[in-house]
Amino acid sequence: MKVLQGIGASPGIAIGRLFFFMGAIHPVDRQLIEDPPAEIERFEVARQASIDSLHQIYERALEEIGPKDSAIFQIHAMLLDDLDYVASVTQIIQEEHVNAEYAVYQTAMRLFDVFSSIDDDYMRQRGADVLDISKRLLRTLTGAKEQNLDEVNGQVIIAADDLMPSETIRLDQSKALAFVTREGSRHSHTAILARTMGIPAVVGLEDAFDCLADRVEVIVDGMTGEVCVEPDAETLERYIARRGQYLAACKRLAKLRDQPSITKDGMRVEITANVGSIGDVEIAVKNGAEGIGLFRSEGLYLGRNEVPTEGEQFVIYREALERMPGKRVIIRTLDLGADKRAPCLGLLREDNPAMGSRAIRYCLSHPALFCTQLRALLRASVYGHLALLIPMVTSLEEVHRTKALIEEIKRDLDNEGIPYANNYEFGVMIETPAAAMISDRLAQEVDFFSVGTNDLTQYTLATDRTNRSLSALYSPRHPAVLGLVRMAVENGRRHGVWTGVCGESATDPDLIPVFLSMGVAELSVAPPAILDVREKVRALDLTKARLDGRTKGF
Amino acid sequence: MKVLQGIGASPGIAIGRLFFFMGAIHPVDRQLIEDPPAEIERFEVARQASIDSLHQIYERALEEIGPKDSAIFQIHAMLLDDLDYVASVTQIIQEEHVNAEYAVYQTAMRLFDVFSSIDDDYMRQRGADVLDISKRLLRTLTGAKEQNLDEVNGQVIIAADDLMPSETIRLDQSKALAFVTREGSRHSHTAILARTMGIPAVVGLEDAFDCLADRVEVIVDGMTGEVCVEPDAETLERYIARRGQYLAACKRLAKLRDQPSITKDGMRVEITANVGSIGDVEIAVKNGAEGIGLFRSEGLYLGRNEVPTEGEQFVIYREALERMPGKRVIIRTLDLGADKRAPCLGLLREDNPAMGSRAIRYCLSHPALFCTQLRALLRASVYGHLALLIPMVTSLEEVHRTKALIEEIKRDLDNEGIPYANNYEFGVMIETPAAAMISDRLAQEVDFFSVGTNDLTQYTLATDRTNRSLSALYSPRHPAVLGLVRMAVENGRRHGVWTGVCGESATDPDLIPVFLSMGVAELSVAPPAILDVREKVRALDLTKARLDGRTKGF
Repeated sequence: MKVLQGIGASPGIAIGRLFFFMGAIHPVDRQLIEDPPAEIERFEVARQASIDSLHQIYERALEEIGPKDSAIFQIHAMLLDDLDYVASVTQIIQEEHVNAEYAVYQTAMRLFDVFSSIDDDYMRQRGADVLDISKRLLRTLTGAKEQNLDEVNGQVIIAADDLMPSETIRLDQSKALAFVTREGSRHSHTAILARTMGIPAVVGLEDAFDCLADRVEVIVDGMTGEVCVEPDAETLERYIARRGQYLAACKRLAKLRDQPSITKDGMRVEITANVGSIGDVEIAVKNGAEGIGLFRSEGLYLGRNEVPTEGEQFVIYREALERMPGKRVIIRTLDLGADKRAPCLGLLREDNPAMGSRAIRYCLSHPALFCTQLRALLRASVYGHLALLIPMVTSLEEVHRTKALIEEIKRDLDNEGIPYANNYEFGVMIETPAAAMISDRLAQEVDFFSVGTNDLTQYTLATDRTNRSLSALYSPRHPAVLGLVRMAVENGRRHGVWTGVCGESATDPDLIPVFLSMGVAELSVAPPAILDVREKVRALDLTKARLDGRTKGF
Repeated sequence: MKVLQGIGASPGIAIGRLFFFMGAIHPVDRQLIEDPPAEIERFEVARQASIDSLHQIYERALEEIGPKDSAIFQIHAMLLDDLDYVASVTQIIQEEHVNAEYAVYQTAMRLFDVFSSIDDDYMRQRGADVLDISKRLLRTLTGAKEQNLDEVNGQVIIAADDLMPSETIRLDQSKALAFVTREGSRHSHTAILARTMGIPAVVGLEDAFDCLADRVEVIVDGMTGEVCVEPDAETLERYIARRGQYLAACKRLAKLRDQPSITKDGMRVEITANVGSIGDVEIAVKNGAEGIGLFRSEGLYLGRNEVPTEGEQFVIYREALERMPGKRVIIRTLDLGADKRAPCLGLLREDNPAMGSRAIRYCLSHPALFCTQLRALLRASVYGHLALLIPMVTSLEEVHRTKALIEEIKRDLDNEGIPYANNYEFGVMIETPAAAMISDRLAQEVDFFSVGTNDLTQYTLATDRTNRSLSALYSPRHPAVLGLVRMAVENGRRHGVWTGVCGESATDPDLIPVFLSMGVAELSVAPPAILDVREKVRALDLTKARLDGRTKGF
């Protein structure tokens, strides 16, 4: 037996046999050919077939996983039309008189190196995309059948160097017990997919991945990141018991689906979901969300070459509202900046993008783009209980300017005879120290506050939360952060404004009683965490916690 | 008459004739030569002569402008020994059978292009350095006399594309009335030099610079950035009057040199200087500083390939203390990060360097480097009234860890029989929202607070202060910033801890009464601003201002 250590990327325990899926791009034999034009024609046919197939995958993905996660297939189809790529392949065939496979392989490696050498997540992702389309081309050229799980009996644990979007969407998901991959981080595509599907995953095994072999029995622990290869009887027994406990906990939590989130001493709090797509909303519903506490609208803009139209946005906002009848859906307006790039926004590089022209700053300096979103939101408002949330606010002026734009749009809608609701709520993110410090004045302008503890922590402590070398400094439990949260909650209450918390600390068992004691009315968390947080809330006795001094902050 | 608009980089008004100095590197004729080895020898001789001459300049500069500003000449001498550079020149001579001048010119242009294409201030500076040494080489090769002001009668206004360090240090400064340059910003070398010399300068004229010609009469307004070319009689008269007013103001202010900084209603405040070198300390003394409020020690580390030794640092700290007898000298420990790179520290690129591993964070994770500085400071402490200041503090732990290091060093010094003072003061920068929020606890650990309004503003507003597109958002007058300053001052006072303000807003006439009303005990400003701030303080009546409601913040 061997125990490998990776990164636990999606919780749960799976026991089963490995199924090696695809694998990375492999070196291709260089063969001299006699008729370059014919070989180029062969390449062209394969390319066209690949584009057609990607369009089909896209259609299917749209239905299954929503527009955000499907956009990648459109991007891939576009990449196959990329002039550099096509010219490089045909030139290699032409000049070296070699087979198309080899020309594709060479092109893929060269472009991958170029993209990977750029110290930028966006560019590195483009490098992975180039590999993905090249694999597809190679498969089409060689006539290799796509590997699939159809011939597999029962369920298996999928092992792969990395799972690429176009690969995972074609998996027969009912047969996947878990994922284990060589590459990847908690935030990689595979990890996100696994969490969405609710199956365990261990990613980033790196060299340890070489210890795995097809058909071998393994245990995957998605919590600890451990993978046991050919477990002995005792280990197997232990994990079977642990899996039993895990599943029992899931079952126990499932009973809380329709229970209220209320402490023992009777304080009621709403537990809502942070989502990024309609697919997430569906998972939130399944997990008993009492509403959407944060709909990140930037998912509509990422990975696209054109800004989404008012119509496209309207359809999605309306869908989100309709899937949450009678419940509040907080949609945050575009929160993008130079750190989260969307090609369609053409953002410039900045020295400190986290403190740059992002979110409401970007929107107010691009009013046409902002108004398109606000119009789509107002039009959708008649289909449910909408709450508008403005990110990254630091001044009253930003609130006034946003409200002025909304009033203008309402006048237009009135003139056009298009309906909108008047009972939507309007709120601001408390995610900068400035917003907390002026919360007394902000409270007079809004219906609610939403505390983003992640950003609030990074600005308060002047500590980039993505900088690994500073992880010891970055703490949402820092008394300065909690002091600013308390300030906002108290200033809000004085003006009848309720406060929610939507950062990661909304799931921190030590902070939940602190937030509730302050008077926080809503905790918005990732959909899979909802029931767990609800259980924690229902086990709390704030009166007792207060007496024990456990709600004072740290 | 023509009026050109540039950037006012050093205050004052100068009226005089232009003297065109040096100018940029000019294309060199390509000449075929017959004996490449002899040509290479010619190049070698010129190179060695240039290195020798740079060593001499360095020695002279050390005395005149101190080690920080002189380091550049050592770097230049090193660049002339750079293998890439030398190999490129000799290779061109060898392979193309061309004159050394042409080979130097080609090499300079190629390297300049390489460096300039990198989007990084440090690299661009290296590009300018390559031009500078190449010009020097060309001058030596062609036997051209160095341009100097010796033959000029009277004073002139120096015009140049840009003034490079080695050029300006050789100027006969008594003959320079002002500088006007095509390139440069407020923070470029020319601007800093002009302010140090106390002569007016307009930089960054860009294309407008082409309107200037040698010997033409101009008026330079270093406040507004205007340059009037061939002024008419009326303009001349107006500027002569304005210059008179300016000089009268300077004279009026000079009288305040030895006056106390005290408001009309008797509140005493210390007006001290922000400095970066011994040269600055000298200017501070001349301008009547009541101490050094901020000695930025990073000047000792910048532009060097090796960390300064304990001995080197000790000499400089001691010098600073000895030039301020009986007055407090606050020396801030190393405040560097990925945004201010020092080659000797080997800092890594970060996505958000302003929120990265810098200042006290860097020092605590490099204790050997930090202890060298702390030891040098403690050893210097017996030569005056030293105050130690720790930058970028966000937690009590950082203070405790720093104090523990100091205690360790004291034990070592005791064992070695090396003296240190025990009456030095120990303070922390209040430049993160976290520090202000926990100032109540910090006050129990330190002797004083120093508010860095520049950084405090950027973190509180999550607004990069160097990002030009956000200049409308960045405001030290924001109520959130002033609220945090007030919090620190009040928490400090409760524990007998005094607070100084050392950011740029210490010179803001609207904020001075606000700070004084809060109870700020010290304003630390750039040396040339000391007397102006003192005059403002002496004109204040806080009791009256309070009644008028002018000290409440904004």
